[in-house]
Amino acid sequence: MQKNYLLTPGPTPLPPYVRQALSKEIIHHRTPQFQAILKDVEDNLKYIFQTKNDVFIFASSGTGAMEAAVANTISANDKVIVIEGGKFGQRWTELNKVFGADIELVQVEWGKAVEPEKIKEILDKDKSIKAVFATQCETSTGVVTDIQALAKIIKDTNAILIVDAISSLGAIDLKTDEWSVDMVVSGSQKGLMLPPGLGFISVSAKAYKLIETCKNPRYYFDLRLAKKALDKNDTPFTPAITTIVALNEVLKNMCSETLEVIFARNKKLADAVRQTMIALGLELFTTLQDTSDAVTAVKVPQGVDGVKLVKTMRDECNVAIAGGQAHLKGKIFRIAHMGFIREDDLKVGIKTLEEVLSRMGYKFEKDIGLKTIEKFLN
Amino acid sequence: MQKNYLLTPGPTPLPPYVRQALSKEIIHHRTPQFQAILKDVEDNLKYIFQTKNDVFIFASSGTGAMEAAVANTISANDKVIVIEGGKFGQRWTELNKVFGADIELVQVEWGKAVEPEKIKEILDKDKSIKAVFATQCETSTGVVTDIQALAKIIKDTNAILIVDAISSLGAIDLKTDEWSVDMVVSGSQKGLMLPPGLGFISVSAKAYKLIETCKNPRYYFDLRLAKKALDKNDTPFTPAITTIVALNEVLKNMCSETLEVIFARNKKLADAVRQTMIALGLELFTTLQDTSDAVTAVKVPQGVDGVKLVKTMRDECNVAIAGGQAHLKGKIFRIAHMGFIREDDLKVGIKTLEEVLSRMGYKFEKDIGLKTIEKFLN
Repeated sequence: MQKNYLLTPGPTPLPPYVRQALSKEIIHHRTPQFQAILKDVEDNLKYIFQTKNDVFIFASSGTGAMEAAVANTISANDKVIVIEGGKFGQRWTELNKVFGADIELVQVEWGKAVEPEKIKEILDKDKSIKAVFATQCETSTGVVTDIQALAKIIKDTNAILIVDAISSLGAIDLKTDEWSVDMVVSGSQKGLMLPPGLGFISVSAKAYKLIETCKNPRYYFDLRLAKKALDKNDTPFTPAITTIVALNEVLKNMCSETLEVIFARNKKLADAVRQTMIALGLELFTTLQDTSDAVTAVKVPQGVDGVKLVKTMRDECNVAIAGGQAHLKGKIFRIAHMGFIREDDLKVGIKTLEEVLSRMGYKFEKDIGLKTIEKFLN
Repeated sequence: MQKNYLLTPGPTPLPPYVRQALSKEIIHHRTPQFQAILKDVEDNLKYIFQTKNDVFIFASSGTGAMEAAVANTISANDKVIVIEGGKFGQRWTELNKVFGADIELVQVEWGKAVEPEKIKEILDKDKSIKAVFATQCETSTGVVTDIQALAKIIKDTNAILIVDAISSLGAIDLKTDEWSVDMVVSGSQKGLMLPPGLGFISVSAKAYKLIETCKNPRYYFDLRLAKKALDKNDTPFTPAITTIVALNEVLKNMCSETLEVIFARNKKLADAVRQTMIALGLELFTTLQDTSDAVTAVKVPQGVDGVKLVKTMRDECNVAIAGGQAHLKGKIFRIAHMGFIREDDLKVGIKTLEEVLSRMGYKFEKDIGLKTIEKFLN
């Protein structure tokens, strides 16, 4: 039996107590027993989302919750701003196109973060803009967007701010209420350390106003139905019972560990990985300032086949990292440091990366990677 | 530690091998390892769906797959027939309303099955009808609809037949291709013995034609995106990895047991339960002819509080059966006999039912229930 190391930005490894919760006898969802779990989950989700707003849970992956954000707020021809600097920003664009939005597209070079001032300029010129769509951690590039700065700009306008926090919730800081973020979308398989299959969305009072007047056809992701059910501590349709039972355990653990401790750990791991990459002579895909503490993207060095690198590490060494997506395929690799990923997992990952890079002809000081990560983690 | 008995029509009990599969280490979904699982799942799903058509898997509950059926085929003002004889028939109506369909509503008294001839009359008069929506096993009433007869009528018309088989797939017979059923919708937590969180839909060539011309906004449930991904043995969005891994185990087991054996077992259990109810002097909610082998609905006898009956069995005796929904609340109870529900589970269920009914003042020959079910199961 080989031990497997999962260092991908979703799914992330499942803690043993999650796997145990998933393997429990199933219970019926229309029972006081499950209602008590839903109640605890709702309370603890508010802590993780840093909000007093309602947080809804869908039986879907994160993209389902992204669809809920668009389908419930944006009617055909509504003006929106989409900040697009990677594959998941593109998903906001695609969703807005599907629902007929009039899109002001702010394209940002992949690997760079948006300048919040740009959004201010557009909003200043056009008071009819209904919403701004952003991605906190763009998983495809490792870039973190300054949500606090965006929120400050958007707060007193007519627009709402909708943030994809799928790979950042519970991994890096997102002060939903303090910063005034109207909708925060997330998923279960990243910072929350669960299998994929739950989508989340928080909704501010300002966002609820758009929901009431929105004309899109919607049913499974209809937040009006979800709200009616939530107020009775229920779900409109059969929930993903087993994953919610495991979520309850995750949230209890995260609340007791505290977000501060979790964010500090991820930052320490992220810093160590980034310094190690630099020590290996590799180039980060983003600047140190724009890089997310959830995932680090690194340029594949000249002369190395990036697709083969990821494949070899996975198939021959049992270490799963992520490659590049779309036009970055083969050009970058990505290492996650969030959720249940711990120091030793990253040490194994770095050791394996060194071995495989070396085999592929890349030159560097022997063991400098492992030495560096050990230095930064001790 | 009390042993719990789950006799509800969804979720149904999880076999031990499912719980074990759910507790495995998670694997990444964009890997040859997961692709091999998806391939096996797709092949074996075709056996369970009795079709050569594509079968799509969504990370959603069954209602999500119902939305996929409507959102991908019915544009605003399209004419449809909805057969509505219970809570899940109503869901077809609600979904069609949301997407703006012009609905010819065929209301059937709850507890009765539709007369297929009625559908023929409507289709004969109106050639512009695009689709007929039916429910094979109406979980809220225990009624089974004669899908074969409906399919025979619809086959040579312009309309497609869309069947909610959420609580019937893998529980009772549904010959998708032989009968010509265009879309079969299902979920994971009934006959497939999994936690909720997977929605399924099969699509015929006739249905694909409607999908191409349908004008509804759709993304998460867009079958065009799903088809593009399926052809590459992939999913458009992150799949519910863990549940699919467990589904793979379920399907292997079901294929090796064969549908014939599974259907025969459910029929034997269903017959035994129904004969037991009659022996107890209770009245079935449906005629013996219209009753489904997946779930039996029984009228709560005069003088007994139906809500309390279900609650007492669950909270004091650890036996979960289902009560009535909507206007049937307190008036019927429902016992499932599908999936991993076995003879001994039902014996415990009947024994408990007798005890609680007796405590609540209902008179019957002592132990006649247990004696009857034992007779029919031996």
